[in-house]
Amino acid sequence: MKLVPLGDRVVLKQVEAEETTKSGLILTTSAQEKPQEAEVIAVGPGGMVDGKEVTMQVKPGDKVIYSKYAGNEVKLEGEEYIIVRQNDILAVVE
Amino acid sequence: MKLVPLGDRVVLKQVEAEETTKSGLILTTSAQEKPQEAEVIAVGPGGMVDGKEVTMQVKPGDKVIYSKYAGNEVKLEGEEYIIVRQNDILAVVE
Amino acid sequence: MKLVPLGDRVVLKQVEAEETTKSGLILTTSAQEKPQEAEVIAVGPGGMVDGKEVTMQVKPGDKVIYSKYAGNEVKLEGEEYIIVRQNDILAVVE
Amino acid sequence: MKLVPLGDRVVLKQVEAEETTKSGLILTTSAQEKPQEAEVIAVGPGGMVDGKEVTMQVKPGDKVIYSKYAGNEVKLEGEEYIIVRQNDILAVVE
Amino acid sequence: MKLVPLGDRVVLKQVEAEETTKSGLILTTSAQEKPQEAEVIAVGPGGMVDGKEVTMQVKPGDKVIYSKYAGNEVKLEGEEYIIVRQNDILAVVE
Amino acid sequence: MKLVPLGDRVVLKQVEAEETTKSGLILTTSAQEKPQEAEVIAVGPGGMVDGKEVTMQVKPGDKVIYSKYAGNEVKLEGEEYIIVRQNDILAVVE
Amino acid sequence: MKLVPLGDRVVLKQVEAEETTKSGLILTTSAQEKPQEAEVIAVGPGGMVDGKEVTMQVKPGDKVIYSKYAGNEVKLEGEEYIIVRQNDILAVVE
Repeated sequence: MKLVPLGDRVVLKQVEAEETTKSGLILTTSAQEKPQEAEVIAVGPGGMVDGKEVTMQVKPGDKVIYSKYAGNEVKLEGEEYIIVRQNDILAVVE
Repeated sequence: MKLVPLGDRVVLKQVEAEETTKSGLILTTSAQEKPQEAEVIAVGPGGMVDGKEVTMQVKPGDKVIYSKYAGNEVKLEGEEYIIVRQNDILAVVE
Repeated sequence: MKLVPLGDRVVLKQVEAEETTKSGLILTTSAQEKPQEAEVIAVGPGGMVDGKEVTMQVKPGDKVIYSKYAGNEVKLEGEEYIIVRQNDILAVVE
Repeated sequence: MKLVPLGDRVVLKQVEAEETTKSGLILTTSAQEKPQEAEVIAVGPGGMVDGKEVTMQVKPGDKVIYSKYAGNEVKLEGEEYIIVRQNDILAVVE
Repeated sequence: MKLVPLGDRVVLKQVEAEETTKSGLILTTSAQEKPQEAEVIAVGPGGMVDGKEVTMQVKPGDKVIYSKYAGNEVKLEGEEYIIVRQNDILAVVE
Repeated sequence: MKLVPLGDRVVLKQVEAEETTKSGLILTTSAQEKPQEAEVIAVGPGGMVDGKEVTMQVKPGDKVIYSKYAGNEVKLEGEEYIIVRQNDILAVVE
Repeated sequence: MKLVPLGDRVVLKQVEAEETTKSGLILTTSAQEKPQEAEVIAVGPGGMVDGKEVTMQVKPGDKVIYSKYAGNEVKLEGEEYIIVRQNDILAVVE
């Protein structure tokens, strides 16, 4: 099963972060503030969205930074995804 | 009786989920958080909606993910439906 | 006397619902949650509304489902009506 | 003195209502919920309003139903008027 | 010194009102609810405002009714003025 | 150092006001309500702003009245400025 | 690694400020109100954003003043950045 986004929607998957605390413990993502960095999984076709022509500028595999307050969390087969509009992607990390 | 949506409206029916708790009980949807996955039942004609041309991109039978905060719940002959605008459908599940 | 709606307005009349409670009592609409199903009584001419061309897609006699949070309640000669914009009608029930 | 409305504004005067309570008392409007029925007193010229072309569709003498939450109350020479935009007039009563 | 409004702004000066209470006292404006009637003092040039062409329809000397919740109060050389957008002027009093 | 505003932004500097209280004390601006009168220090180039063509209508040296709730306060080298959009300037004082 | 902003986004880095308190202590930025002055690090391509053509007017290295309530804070490799839309940049400091 896979998610095929509509319009200017983009399916993201958060990048797992491993971090060491001062006391030496290794924390996985669940114990931390959620990172805003994610990998692009799937990209909508763009085109006419809300009466405005949108050209998609990210592609699967891109690492991106997205707006903290944007997007819908979606769970599919136990995996968590975030679906945002392309406009909520702030920058690509190269 | 059937629902014929207007404009860019789409009639959805939530996908029934059966889930087993840790203690072995089988829960039906009513005891759980509502899933955001639904099946498309009927699709409006699209066309000029709020002064913008809309082309419908989903069809009856599609499994879709829709935005948690969208839509109107409607009950018809004991069955519950959700009517959303196509723009509130985030992705098709294939 | 009759109501002649302006622009994209539609005059609706709620469909009376009779329902039997578990204890056998028959309730009329006033003791229940208001139904969202209504009959179209009169339809505005459409045309240019808020700078957008609107074509009316419902006609008197149609049974429709309308958005719970929309419309103005109006009383005329003891009868209650709801006046909504066509955009607040979600679907026609056929 | 008279009110000459600008743009798509319409000057209304509420229709006086006399009503008999169950105990037989006759109430005038001040002791009741304000009626939403009004008579059109004066009509603006329409034309380009907020960048949109508006054609006036009501005329002095029309009995109209207007939106409960709309309009400005204005007092002129002891008489009370309501000034609404034409878009807040829901229907003409014929 | 004088105020020269920009765009579709209009400078108004409230009309002084003298009123006699039931007990015979004469009240000046400060002890009353502010009247919504005002005299036009100066009128902006209109033209392209917020991307929309605006034609000014009031002129200095006009008595107007303006929306209660609109405008900025401004004090210049001890005199109080209200600066509103033309769209907040409801009607001219003739 | 100087501030060069972008788009339809205008840099203002509040006009210092000296005022004598009833008891004879002289108050400087910090102890008073901030005046809304300001001098234009710098003016953006205008042009296409938010998809709308803006022509700048004020120039450095103009005394202007601006909307009380508008603008960003900015401190540069110990001096305080207010940066507003031209649309928040209500009138020029001549 | 570097941030490549999309659309009309601009990556900023706050200018470090050193300030001496009245008692002689030297404060670094973390103990102060955040400055609104920042250096431009990277600039998006502009073009069609939200259906409006945007031309970028700042370039890397520019010192700018940006709106206090705008932007997303982003951390990359231990460095903090702010990503704003160009429209939230008020002025360039020269």
